[in-house]
Amino acid sequence: MEKIGILLLGHGSSLPYNKELVEETANMLRKKHEIIVHTAFLNKDTPTIQEALKELVNDGTKIIVALPLFLAHGVHTLHDIPAQLGIKNNERKTTIKYGDNHVELFYAEPLGADPVIAEIAYQRAREALRW
Amino acid sequence: MEKIGILLLGHGSSLPYNKELVEETANMLRKKHEIIVHTAFLNKDTPTIQEALKELVNDGTKIIVALPLFLAHGVHTLHDIPAQLGIKNNERKTTIKYGDNHVELFYAEPLGADPVIAEIAYQRAREALRW
Repeated sequence: MEKIGILLLGHGSSLPYNKELVEETANMLRKKHEIIVHTAFLNKDTPTIQEALKELVNDGTKIIVALPLFLAHGVHTLHDIPAQLGIKNNERKTTIKYGDNHVELFYAEPLGADPVIAEIAYQRAREALRW
Repeated sequence: MEKIGILLLGHGSSLPYNKELVEETANMLRKKHEIIVHTAFLNKDTPTIQEALKELVNDGTKIIVALPLFLAHGVHTLHDIPAQLGIKNNERKTTIKYGDNHVELFYAEPLGADPVIAEIAYQRAREALRW
């Protein structure tokens, strides 16, 4: 089987919390699924998407899944991130070349509305009230 | 018991997906917990936070929990939303007055890193690859 890696993408922020969220989530994925996970950020934080793609390719990854850690689609997930990945609008896949390396790059959907996310939100409401 | 309502807060967007996410999540909360949930948006979408607070108060809600549907803290959750709620930096609670009504307003934390969110992300990666 070809070597697969996940590129977990965050929004980035002038504050540390988005980067912490993305790195903690990457650690959860590495631990539970024993997969290669790199992180990258659209704004402010590093590595950039280009830097992280290059690292994954240099590590011998042949199939990369770019996975946006966003709740919903928006301008970032539909335009800004695909532009940086080199994926055309409305497409979900491309092939990238670095020297002699050809890598298949797939682009995943954001999280979306989900009952378990609603339940986490509900717990946050209860905690705020000490309900 | 005093009447409690949740004000579920979204980022807002020029595209419809953030509003859809917030409204679907609000419906999940209403259905599962039989609670009052109103939605509001920081940018672009409506109702605004001020409009939704007023509606909740007019409906007789005495305790409001403002619940940010964001993955992590950032400038929006730490500065922009508290400013619109009238909650001081580093505080989580205030009392608001509309005419003769006094309402207790609490401010909840965002979702945060969570193993179940990591699992949803992992499913999105698998779907992208048809793994």
